[in-house]
Amino acid sequence: MEKFVYDFKEGSKEMKPLLGGKGANLAEMTKIGLPVPHGFTVTTEACNAYYKKGSTLWEELKEEIFKHLQSIETVSGKVFGDVNNPLLVSVRSGAVFSMPGMMDTILNLGLNDQSVEGLAKATNNHRFAYDSYRRFIQMFGDVVLQIKKYKFEHAMEKLKESRNVELDIDLTSEDLKHLVEDFKKITLKETGEEFPQDVRQQLLMAIEAVFKSWNNPRAKVYRKINDIPEHLGTAVNVQMMVFGNMGETSGTGVAFTRNPSNGEKVLFGEFLMNAQGEDVVAGIRTPKEIKDLQERMPNAYQSFVEVCGILEDHYRDMQDIEFTIEKGNLFILQTRNGKRTTHAAINIAVDMVHEGLISKKEAIMRVEPQQLDQLLHPTFDERELEKAEIITKGLPASAGAASGRVYFSPEDVVKANASGEKAILVRHETSPEDIEGMVASVGILTARGGMTSHAAVVARGMGKCCVAGAGEVKIHEAIKQFKVRDQVFHEGDYISLNGNTGEIFTGEIKTQNPQLSGNFEVYMKWADDFRRLKIRTNADTPRDTRQAIEFGAEGIGLCRTEHMFFEDTRIPVVRQMIVSRTIEQRKNALQQLLPMQRQDFLEIFEVMGERPVTIRLLDPPLHEFLPHEDEDVKALAQTMEISYQQLKEVVNDLKEFNPMLGHRGCRLAITYPEIYQMQVQAIIEAAVIAKVERGLEVIPEIMVPLVGEVKELEFVKELIIKTADEVFEEKGTSVQYLIGTMIEIPRACVTADIIAKEAEFFSFGTNDLTQMAYGFSRDDAGSFIKEYIDKAILEKDPFQRIDRTGVGKLMEIAVELGKKARPNIKLGICGEHGGEPNSIEFCHLLGLDYVSCSPFRVPIARLAAAQAAINSKDQLK
Amino acid sequence: MEKFVYDFKEGSKEMKPLLGGKGANLAEMTKIGLPVPHGFTVTTEACNAYYKKGSTLWEELKEEIFKHLQSIETVSGKVFGDVNNPLLVSVRSGAVFSMPGMMDTILNLGLNDQSVEGLAKATNNHRFAYDSYRRFIQMFGDVVLQIKKYKFEHAMEKLKESRNVELDIDLTSEDLKHLVEDFKKITLKETGEEFPQDVRQQLLMAIEAVFKSWNNPRAKVYRKINDIPEHLGTAVNVQMMVFGNMGETSGTGVAFTRNPSNGEKVLFGEFLMNAQGEDVVAGIRTPKEIKDLQERMPNAYQSFVEVCGILEDHYRDMQDIEFTIEKGNLFILQTRNGKRTTHAAINIAVDMVHEGLISKKEAIMRVEPQQLDQLLHPTFDERELEKAEIITKGLPASAGAASGRVYFSPEDVVKANASGEKAILVRHETSPEDIEGMVASVGILTARGGMTSHAAVVARGMGKCCVAGAGEVKIHEAIKQFKVRDQVFHEGDYISLNGNTGEIFTGEIKTQNPQLSGNFEVYMKWADDFRRLKIRTNADTPRDTRQAIEFGAEGIGLCRTEHMFFEDTRIPVVRQMIVSRTIEQRKNALQQLLPMQRQDFLEIFEVMGERPVTIRLLDPPLHEFLPHEDEDVKALAQTMEISYQQLKEVVNDLKEFNPMLGHRGCRLAITYPEIYQMQVQAIIEAAVIAKVERGLEVIPEIMVPLVGEVKELEFVKELIIKTADEVFEEKGTSVQYLIGTMIEIPRACVTADIIAKEAEFFSFGTNDLTQMAYGFSRDDAGSFIKEYIDKAILEKDPFQRIDRTGVGKLMEIAVELGKKARPNIKLGICGEHGGEPNSIEFCHLLGLDYVSCSPFRVPIARLAAAQAAINSKDQLK
Repeated sequence: MEKFVYDFKEGSKEMKPLLGGKGANLAEMTKIGLPVPHGFTVTTEACNAYYKKGSTLWEELKEEIFKHLQSIETVSGKVFGDVNNPLLVSVRSGAVFSMPGMMDTILNLGLNDQSVEGLAKATNNHRFAYDSYRRFIQMFGDVVLQIKKYKFEHAMEKLKESRNVELDIDLTSEDLKHLVEDFKKITLKETGEEFPQDVRQQLLMAIEAVFKSWNNPRAKVYRKINDIPEHLGTAVNVQMMVFGNMGETSGTGVAFTRNPSNGEKVLFGEFLMNAQGEDVVAGIRTPKEIKDLQERMPNAYQSFVEVCGILEDHYRDMQDIEFTIEKGNLFILQTRNGKRTTHAAINIAVDMVHEGLISKKEAIMRVEPQQLDQLLHPTFDERELEKAEIITKGLPASAGAASGRVYFSPEDVVKANASGEKAILVRHETSPEDIEGMVASVGILTARGGMTSHAAVVARGMGKCCVAGAGEVKIHEAIKQFKVRDQVFHEGDYISLNGNTGEIFTGEIKTQNPQLSGNFEVYMKWADDFRRLKIRTNADTPRDTRQAIEFGAEGIGLCRTEHMFFEDTRIPVVRQMIVSRTIEQRKNALQQLLPMQRQDFLEIFEVMGERPVTIRLLDPPLHEFLPHEDEDVKALAQTMEISYQQLKEVVNDLKEFNPMLGHRGCRLAITYPEIYQMQVQAIIEAAVIAKVERGLEVIPEIMVPLVGEVKELEFVKELIIKTADEVFEEKGTSVQYLIGTMIEIPRACVTADIIAKEAEFFSFGTNDLTQMAYGFSRDDAGSFIKEYIDKAILEKDPFQRIDRTGVGKLMEIAVELGKKARPNIKLGICGEHGGEPNSIEFCHLLGLDYVSCSPFRVPIARLAAAQAAINSKDQLK
Repeated sequence: MEKFVYDFKEGSKEMKPLLGGKGANLAEMTKIGLPVPHGFTVTTEACNAYYKKGSTLWEELKEEIFKHLQSIETVSGKVFGDVNNPLLVSVRSGAVFSMPGMMDTILNLGLNDQSVEGLAKATNNHRFAYDSYRRFIQMFGDVVLQIKKYKFEHAMEKLKESRNVELDIDLTSEDLKHLVEDFKKITLKETGEEFPQDVRQQLLMAIEAVFKSWNNPRAKVYRKINDIPEHLGTAVNVQMMVFGNMGETSGTGVAFTRNPSNGEKVLFGEFLMNAQGEDVVAGIRTPKEIKDLQERMPNAYQSFVEVCGILEDHYRDMQDIEFTIEKGNLFILQTRNGKRTTHAAINIAVDMVHEGLISKKEAIMRVEPQQLDQLLHPTFDERELEKAEIITKGLPASAGAASGRVYFSPEDVVKANASGEKAILVRHETSPEDIEGMVASVGILTARGGMTSHAAVVARGMGKCCVAGAGEVKIHEAIKQFKVRDQVFHEGDYISLNGNTGEIFTGEIKTQNPQLSGNFEVYMKWADDFRRLKIRTNADTPRDTRQAIEFGAEGIGLCRTEHMFFEDTRIPVVRQMIVSRTIEQRKNALQQLLPMQRQDFLEIFEVMGERPVTIRLLDPPLHEFLPHEDEDVKALAQTMEISYQQLKEVVNDLKEFNPMLGHRGCRLAITYPEIYQMQVQAIIEAAVIAKVERGLEVIPEIMVPLVGEVKELEFVKELIIKTADEVFEEKGTSVQYLIGTMIEIPRACVTADIIAKEAEFFSFGTNDLTQMAYGFSRDDAGSFIKEYIDKAILEKDPFQRIDRTGVGKLMEIAVELGKKARPNIKLGICGEHGGEPNSIEFCHLLGLDYVSCSPFRVPIARLAAAQAAINSKDQLK
């Protein structure tokens, strides 16, 4: 006969698939001799068998359950349903993966009209016994009998009213006894049956309820979203109740084995004497610090300290432990790896390596890479945050916390900043013209746009807090206000943004600046030893570049030349170039831009030393450099001293229905080769100067964007080589350089073999690739992607995490074809995914050479790359 | 020793790779005993060897050439360079594929200061001899010596001035003698050398010039565009000159073996007595009809008729023959398959099958499918067209010819049409709101948009002439005029459009209506017997559907439900639906649309009988149904009796940066399931009515657009099944139906195995797939695609012809994965490519089951599918 029930002492942590997470954990603690209250687990297979048998508990299972219950009775000396010293049990679900939405816990099961008296005797507390009973009926009524909660609550309120008291604890023992009667009546009325007095029946009903909760709608949705197979089933844990409220030698508490806030190696926690767990939670009495337990109950304290040591050693991680002391006896109810701040996580990991408890490899796996954001950006004061009122939520576009006054134009933000105010820029969406305002702000909020919108990308580059695509925010720029449903915010009002969660709050919330501890450097160095992927950065300015190097960047994977075009001194020349009517006019304007671009590149080369630098030639459509509103066009026409009509015509000619799919990237070079010609000249001249005047051997990597057809690349390549040769001839010296391409067009992926013949490197532009693979505009998808995620059609926003199934498949095809045609081709990624841990792991598995991300994501990428290498067992050491 | 020179009698038409097209043809005619002037061919391999040897003619080759020259002398009795009866030759290039851009012809080679006198004697025409000599120097100077043409022309003009004559023929023999001296001086001045008097040197120089012309820039570009390999090389043909101007028993002419205009089996052509070919071309004398030759020279005529018979039988096609009669002797200078109208092509093909000359299979290969357009649409009167003045060119978006008055708004077109005018709608671009104006127009001209823009797609559906994306057309709607450079056109001005070429003309040009001959039906039936692909149509109305069935459509591959939404009576309800603020309001509006849609489908089912009908659920973004200009929004708000503000907010909310990548297709169903629910209900109810009331077993194919992720399809599928089941339950009867999806998103292609598990059919939406695979917006790409084609980066507009390398690769992946998951999956295409012959061939090779195209393209598709089957030797019969 198949075994469906396991005593805690029969299991171990390896039996998680059979016993569920909680069951395996309780078994493990039992196994290593810790004082865990006795109990047993009904297995996940029992759950599956239950469904196979048409949702009924079969006789053999029932027998097995009661056999195990009996053994608890034997060991504990208590009897289930007894009128003197009754055994009470808790019943808890326990799936393999922790699953919200399933039934959680029923406490005090085993109480009925008889045993409640036994409990009163045993605890010497009549009121407690009846309070436990009414709580049990309430819990059982809710989760097992499916009676609406408010029915019980309503009865309770009526009772308090009639007794003219306010708090539950002001009800007397007799009151509670009445309440129990009321609750039983409610049960009868709602279910047509008496509240079950047969404690064995109670137990079976509770177990069945856990099985059923596996298939309730919330649990099903959760499984769908998280790809948890339907066939796993849930286990059920039945455990003897212990009581911390059996007098002055009893108590209950929670403790961490180390300080979860800074990682210091001291016990950290609190306890209450003569109390139950829920009293700690209820917050009616003030708990004491754990060290005070030493004085009160030195033996129990000593036992607890020992248990803490054993558990930490056993689980080799900081533990979060729940305990109860019943009449001087310590019981451990739960242990789990404790949650901690990133600061603590790193300190604990480094300390544990030094203590010899874990290996460096394990240490590296202990910190979620994404968590490092906490260390690099401001955070809200936790206490203030608790009181804050949330307005609405957008996308967590760029990490950090910001609090400031609302302004609706970049100019106003700049002014506010100049007068010492902290300003938050609120826009429908940002555009390159807004850069100055973005720099001057403490944070950015946009109503539209996704995780890779302009605002998001630029803010991440700056390490500035940004919440994007907050659809409920309706902006009225003209009257300088925004509305969220009926709430109105005016210019100058304070709001606060949480860039890690996307939350937007009313008013000011104090923020704390980040601090990097000494262990951070140590920890990151260890990570570097494990990773195979190189980490580069997306940086366009010497300032960003310096920041990225401080964070450990090993090169630039994407230097966007267009951002350089927006500077005050340059944009007029860029516009002259665009408005040119003849090639000569255009070349004239470009001739003015040449020395500026050359200087940019030279400065970046100087900061980077001889680290590799990938420079992307002009990518955005030209209309991005021109204003679109009639008023602005008029103003510009005046400045440029051309007719409004003439400028308007240019603006109209450049207008596109779908600019993402329009005249941009290398397509510009096909029509205006002279633009790329100037850029290449600037790059090569800068490299020559770096070599001749600074002695730097720079090997620039010139990257052609938006190639979909090899002939585009051939065309630009010819132009690059010709231009470079001309520079070499003029300067009488030459430098090495590489020519490569972005892979961001689906067609480029499926023709990568042909393209690789002309390209020395590929850099995956996964923003555009995701747009085109899905047919989602990153600027517009915000309007429906939320619904997609809510309805479990998408698990994750594919602009945040690489979609391995589709986009990833295209990348895989490109890598395979590319390597076939050019085995030593250099492969990287410079889309925003290059800073997202799950995507980095995918890049590692794909065999890319590097990932490139915004400067503030470099540490995250270093750690994620190390973890990917460890996970795939592809470690260098 | 390798043989590099072949006498005409040594070759045959199979030796084209070695002898080139022209050489092989001359050899073939020689072989079958036709009177071809003697000659020889220097092979393509000689050309390649010439380049390998550093571009020099080597001794052995020269010897071989002169040996063959000698054999002409022997046979003809003439001597090269002789002072009495000189042999003159023509030298012509002749590549494997006819290639414009290469050197064409040098005539009269062999003339020098001595032999010119010999020619004078032989022809008894001193003037003719010197005229020939000066022409020879001119031709040789131009193409061999690279002297600019105008230098000679200038000298000629000066001479005519000094002689005070206007025409060349007014120059005397002495004048021409002087001119020859002038020409020789020019040659000396320009080249520093005397004009070569050594006739053998002349010949070698001419041959070398032909070799060199293989590598001139124009020829290289042509090869690149047409994928002609560089290594093929060109042959050179050297042929004895014969003269039609040796008196009244000489003459020259051109004739077709059948009437090229209607196909009638009679000789058709003209001739001139005592003349050379160029005189016919020059048009100075009026040629006579070929039948008159019978009277003038019955023997020569009889010979010619025989030759025509032999050539037609031999080439098994209507021939276009050049002949010369020299002193009563007939010579054939060239024969080639004659160009003909489509009408003639079909008649000739059918006749030749009846005559037993060709097989049906050959007949099917004789007509270019695209040519059928000529039969289905109006065409311009050829004579009027010759005189017409072209304004500019756009894309040939929809076939046909149209002449009418210019109007700039659909309303004005409707008015003009009502008052009996022929109106041409001129717009920046059209949108669904313009439909009525499009219907009322005789043709449509847009300044923007590509081959698959709204205007193009809708016009093709209507079989209406359309020129799209004419970038030079600058429209000023406000003042009702458009400009092309400096030419201004006002409302009411006449213009004419050629939808086959994209040309736009000033003024009115008479058009002819198409006529389908009886042979058309016969021919198309034959085609049907060869094809494997089924041909469906893209049709949204009973009218279009009927038209398509007349043209032979076997089903509907794409019924776009949205076009039904634009009708006068419906658009207000659709707008109500969009502006709804609650689900209830939206459902109310949908409830009103339901009976209308049901009626649409029912009518279509009735027209289609039991042919398959694929209905696509709503695809376009909702903002397409709303106005965008403030003024129109205000007007609509008034009509709808809602506030301007409220409507404006909806319009703003729906606004997208890149609508092509926005909230449309099945994405609408995720957010507003009730829209698809209504559509499905309408489809299923219509099918039930068709069954119950009309006895039709309709199996509707419900198609979900824009699926990129299988869960989208799963979501919609669940909704479809639920809705259908509800209808079945209510009606008490059920019908069969299929659920499938468009494959138009790159991600769908690479995950087609997953998607196929849920889809019973795939229909490739190659318009969108091309957009996303390339990252080209079809509405915007017009601005740079022309440049792409000019610069040979694209061979063809991929929106016109499926790009097999990239888009095709994605399709191939989808077909392979789809079939793997569901071997019997139904595969089709409903993008615009479904009516383009080259793309249809690709679909055949891919193994699709059907192609679907606009009604007027159905005959083209039938023929193209037949040719594809024949070409791939995958014939069913």
